Amino acid sequence: MKTIKLTVSYDGTDYVGWQSQKNGVAVQDLIEEALEKVCKEKIRITGSGRTDAGVHALGQVAHFKTESTVPPERFALALNTYLPRDIRVLKSEQAPDDFNARYSAKRKKYRYSAFIADISLPLKDRYALWLQGMPDIEAMKKAAEIFVGEHDFKSFSSTGSEVKTTVRTIYSLDVKEDNGDITIEVCGNGFLYNMVRVIAGSLFAVGYGKTTINALIEALSGAKRPNVCTTLPAQGLCLVSVDYDG
Amino acid sequence: MKTIKLTVSYDGTDYVGWQSQKNGVAVQDLIEEALEKVCKEKIRITGSGRTDAGVHALGQVAHFKTESTVPPERFALALNTYLPRDIRVLKSEQAPDDFNARYSAKRKKYRYSAFIADISLPLKDRYALWLQGMPDIEAMKKAAEIFVGEHDFKSFSSTGSEVKTTVRTIYSLDVKEDNGDITIEVCGNGFLYNMVRVIAGSLFAVGYGKTTINALIEALSGAKRPNVCTTLPAQGLCLVSVDYDG
Repeated sequence: MKTIKLTVSYDGTDYVGWQSQKNGVAVQDLIEEALEKVCKEKIRITGSGRTDAGVHALGQVAHFKTESTVPPERFALALNTYLPRDIRVLKSEQAPDDFNARYSAKRKKYRYSAFIADISLPLKDRYALWLQGMPDIEAMKKAAEIFVGEHDFKSFSSTGSEVKTTVRTIYSLDVKEDNGDITIEVCGNGFLYNMVRVIAGSLFAVGYGKTTINALIEALSGAKRPNVCTTLPAQGLCLVSVDYDG
Repeated sequence: MKTIKLTVSYDGTDYVGWQSQKNGVAVQDLIEEALEKVCKEKIRITGSGRTDAGVHALGQVAHFKTESTVPPERFALALNTYLPRDIRVLKSEQAPDDFNARYSAKRKKYRYSAFIADISLPLKDRYALWLQGMPDIEAMKKAAEIFVGEHDFKSFSSTGSEVKTTVRTIYSLDVKEDNGDITIEVCGNGFLYNMVRVIAGSLFAVGYGKTTINALIEALSGAKRPNVCTTLPAQGLCLVSVDYDG
């Protein structure tokens, strides 16, 4: 029995998310269907975590166990034969027997992208959030600093998933602006439900002067977060990578 | 009677092209439908030229004539209310009575985009051509130089449209590479059917060592172009801008 690790990229626009749901097609469903064609057996895969409907991935990671004699590194090409163009297995490799895409994950990196324009731009709209008016980028960078470190992120997430603890560690949270394109890149040991989209919403709320850094600090200490710190739409979010080392 | 000039951006993936066709929905159709809702009259619009099925636009230009009392600059917002997200009118303005989006055009700029990767990347695949293996960028730049100037581009186009002359002038043709993303940007006074996609295909043919610059020079002098100089797929092509000045 081998354990195979897959690195997967997808355009999440047309899917209900990574994880199988009753209400539509999930990325996981299509990979499992492709696996069944390749391995001639039903195989369940485990992702590093869910991505919501419409969220994209550059480097989602999943694993499965199989008795198949297909060489581990050949699964990528074999699966891509059966997958639609908006899902690609970028890499397949054998992992240690105890490797688990979800529980072995040490760090994850997400990116939230937005673009500033008077009118939405169709060639950016699919992978970024359209915003009107340039926010104060320096204020957003300053606000980002308060999230770095170990905090209880309860106020910066949505209820909806059962978790033992709402304490997480953010290793870095960077805001960049280039010619009207704004990216917020965050690396942490794990993220609560909607946490990245809420933090991104909070940074933009500061950038547009709708709330203050002090209000965010209070929310990070357990207060309710300001109402203007909304959960931003899915299309701007991308799971960049999942890290399993040390 | 006012003449209104529209600047339009669209994601061409789901359309049969700019121009109305019998076999599906064209960008022009949807703008004309939106115009009818805004102006309460059937209005025919004229684009600067056709873009083929799947080709994108950052700045397509069109015009129409109307008796409507809607202020010229308000058409953009009004039309966008009725257009799907993948088509946006970026600007509307009154133009001189004799302005014609097609016949007044002086210069057009197109961009062909490709990305180099072992396996296709879903987040780039929609707006660029996937290629495996890095071509010789310096050779492509050198090959690009021979197209600049006034030439008979008959051998670098597809038959299919009636034209008086196959002579066109290319003002610039630039090849750039950045971290595996390759863009070919071309500016000219007009382009024959498939001309940009064939020139891009010819540059890559040189870059991959499948043909020589001399073979291209001969084709530019009237010889048949080498078979390896193929018409590249539509999704990598984007109409960047149309210029009407002097």
